[in-house]
Amino acid sequence: MFEELRERVVAANLGLVEAGLVVLTFGNASAAERTAGVMAIKPSGVRYDELRPEDIPVLDIASGELVEGARRPSSDTPTHLVLYRAFASVGGVVHTHSPFATAWAQAQRELPCLGTTHADHFHGPVPVTRQLTPAEIDGDYEERTGAVILETFAKRRLEPLAVPAALVASHGPFAWGVTVEDAVENAVALEAVAASAYRSVVLAAELDAIPPELLEKHFARKHGETAYYGQPA
Amino acid sequence: MFEELRERVVAANLGLVEAGLVVLTFGNASAAERTAGVMAIKPSGVRYDELRPEDIPVLDIASGELVEGARRPSSDTPTHLVLYRAFASVGGVVHTHSPFATAWAQAQRELPCLGTTHADHFHGPVPVTRQLTPAEIDGDYEERTGAVILETFAKRRLEPLAVPAALVASHGPFAWGVTVEDAVENAVALEAVAASAYRSVVLAAELDAIPPELLEKHFARKHGETAYYGQPA
Amino acid sequence: MFEELRERVVAANLGLVEAGLVVLTFGNASAAERTAGVMAIKPSGVRYDELRPEDIPVLDIASGELVEGARRPSSDTPTHLVLYRAFASVGGVVHTHSPFATAWAQAQRELPCLGTTHADHFHGPVPVTRQLTPAEIDGDYEERTGAVILETFAKRRLEPLAVPAALVASHGPFAWGVTVEDAVENAVALEAVAASAYRSVVLAAELDAIPPELLEKHFARKHGETAYYGQPA
Amino acid sequence: MFEELRERVVAANLGLVEAGLVVLTFGNASAAERTAGVMAIKPSGVRYDELRPEDIPVLDIASGELVEGARRPSSDTPTHLVLYRAFASVGGVVHTHSPFATAWAQAQRELPCLGTTHADHFHGPVPVTRQLTPAEIDGDYEERTGAVILETFAKRRLEPLAVPAALVASHGPFAWGVTVEDAVENAVALEAVAASAYRSVVLAAELDAIPPELLEKHFARKHGETAYYGQPA
Repeated sequence: MFEELRERVVAANLGLVEAGLVVLTFGNASAAERTAGVMAIKPSGVRYDELRPEDIPVLDIASGELVEGARRPSSDTPTHLVLYRAFASVGGVVHTHSPFATAWAQAQRELPCLGTTHADHFHGPVPVTRQLTPAEIDGDYEERTGAVILETFAKRRLEPLAVPAALVASHGPFAWGVTVEDAVENAVALEAVAASAYRSVVLAAELDAIPPELLEKHFARKHGETAYYGQPA
Repeated sequence: MFEELRERVVAANLGLVEAGLVVLTFGNASAAERTAGVMAIKPSGVRYDELRPEDIPVLDIASGELVEGARRPSSDTPTHLVLYRAFASVGGVVHTHSPFATAWAQAQRELPCLGTTHADHFHGPVPVTRQLTPAEIDGDYEERTGAVILETFAKRRLEPLAVPAALVASHGPFAWGVTVEDAVENAVALEAVAASAYRSVVLAAELDAIPPELLEKHFARKHGETAYYGQPA
Repeated sequence: MFEELRERVVAANLGLVEAGLVVLTFGNASAAERTAGVMAIKPSGVRYDELRPEDIPVLDIASGELVEGARRPSSDTPTHLVLYRAFASVGGVVHTHSPFATAWAQAQRELPCLGTTHADHFHGPVPVTRQLTPAEIDGDYEERTGAVILETFAKRRLEPLAVPAALVASHGPFAWGVTVEDAVENAVALEAVAASAYRSVVLAAELDAIPPELLEKHFARKHGETAYYGQPA
Repeated sequence: MFEELRERVVAANLGLVEAGLVVLTFGNASAAERTAGVMAIKPSGVRYDELRPEDIPVLDIASGELVEGARRPSSDTPTHLVLYRAFASVGGVVHTHSPFATAWAQAQRELPCLGTTHADHFHGPVPVTRQLTPAEIDGDYEERTGAVILETFAKRRLEPLAVPAALVASHGPFAWGVTVEDAVENAVALEAVAASAYRSVVLAAELDAIPPELLEKHFARKHGETAYYGQPA
């Protein structure tokens, strides 16, 4: 069961390697099947070149119980589960330590919208979370990592599909999308945008965000009812 | 019809991927056939590894009407058309979000001529446009993007083949050439020059442009009647 | 004899090339076999693509004498030997001139723990040694390079497997592990962490280390009795 | 005639591409055969993937006259000839626009010796030339480019094989060696050292050169009668 789901999870994880977003066993991608109420995720600490569909654990989203698979799921699984529970429109989640996005997360700076590449994918700055408290870290750490992303989105009234990524302070990026393939694409776009923004602020330290009209225009070109980017469905 | 033109457009778009100038579906290359008054361009949102000559839309340059092909052309098509209409000597146009050129565009700094690599390809600084106004963004946005490049070239009295590229503020680079192959080469050179200039200003913040004699010498080595670079035709 | 050990040393050295940590003949990896009291190391100045198991010299750790192999061992062999003698738990040592770790070593700055990627691998900052004195350099230089690493670890009361790397001032990184495969992994992680930290301090010059709770949490996820990262043994 | 020489020149030029030192048709490598008094060099403006031994021009070093080959030699040929005439011990010359070495050249800063990687290859800072005067640029420009390298080495009393590279101000690096293979290796080492030095000065702006004892030790490990790096001849 869930064979196609597991194959897509393998492909998505390999996509992170091909895009240069992960080294060693850093990072993980998961995909949900909402009708069955499950998600499939990379097993913990397994090398990317050894991933096989039958190794991919499948978990019940509501309970977090293992439904299929003998391997232990990624240690970041509780973070993925929190995001799937809260973001009903999300079907795929990706976590990486990609170089430039991680640099912004470590610097505890939100990623400002400095250009149209950013606006094509993210409707405004990609937020950075607050630091977790010692109590949150000592407790159910990975679950709290998800919770602090939700808190950040609630405080800023952000829509998860309008800004499909967050930077966890002192940690790194999470990205998501309607499908896991979209989530990988958003993780790739996030890293490209983080790299250009890094170099832009080196060239012009006091750079403002792009005008709101330009942000709206580019985001609307690709998203929503007025989108005219891409081929008609 | 226009089979060779479409094949060249496919090859040029793949050349952008090979040179590391684009990821995902960012960027696009087009080629004109001036005798027929048409140009062929990447279809919108199609993955580079799925591009086939028969998918390449061909448009009338004067009217912007689709002449051949079932796919929707790149959303940046109106920008390309404006450039082809104004720059009669140009036969190919390339748009990328290449990392370092985009950083300069986002920083809204023109790319200064800091070395002979630059002077080999661009006869002076590569200009950055002004920001578009809200009215320009809300109206015919992509057409206005082309227009603001023309405005920049007119104000500075630049020849399009002497400075075959521009940085659109908060967006990214456009490059062009007599052929689409030249346009790709200029986009590759622009990115290399943008990277070296970035690192040069980090090492020496108040760096001046190279002496005018050195600029003239290098540009003239490769361009115009006194050129002695390359093999005799 | 020691055929498997030599094959692992070849594979580990090639792993440094594949990970982009070395160019030309820079760098070297060695592996110990503690029951026999020997270690095997890259021969000096041999190209990576010409390494064969039979070329790998095997040396007695206590005496430093050549046990097997006709090739001259790496000029850095005395540094490796000092580390094996002092760090009984270490079974592999790697030396590279990887770009970002070398930049921190040359800048004579310790590598601060700015994120969880760092904490996953290194239990606190990766220390930088003091400069060697002229007498140390003129004498048994490579042996003193090992000694200054030991001195740094002794002064700071560091455990070699808790912080499995050091930056030698004006030189570059050494990394180690229980096996040579672990040592390569730590060298890869060190370079990734050095790159993100470099960009983090560019974005936020006065950045503090991550909270101690977060450091403990991440290190303990992967190391020691409470580890829950990876698959059960 | 000179078939082996031409094949080595093709291989050396391809080595520059493989090492990431050149893009497009930037850069060139040449090799001398001193007994015949000739040198062979990349033809001007020919793509690297189209280089064939029979295309490589061979020139008389003393007169600069073409001895063999129908192609026009690199436009930088007069610079190579000046170096071969003055540096009798040099058998290969390489010119690139490699990213980091070019950044230092454009910033008109000499490349300081900040670590042992540098000291392994270059006995002290890699010098940067003065700017050429307008008269020098307007006259025999490429010949004067060689002459200003010689002037820089004469003023600083540098030995060409002790410091086998120079940065030409506002232009880029030249490297050389006893053979063209050594020259390529020195160009690769120069780029690696230029990258680490760039990042080192970002991390520590007022960084001093390494102590003279460390410079002497590392250079002497690899060069001269007391060398103990590499395998015995």
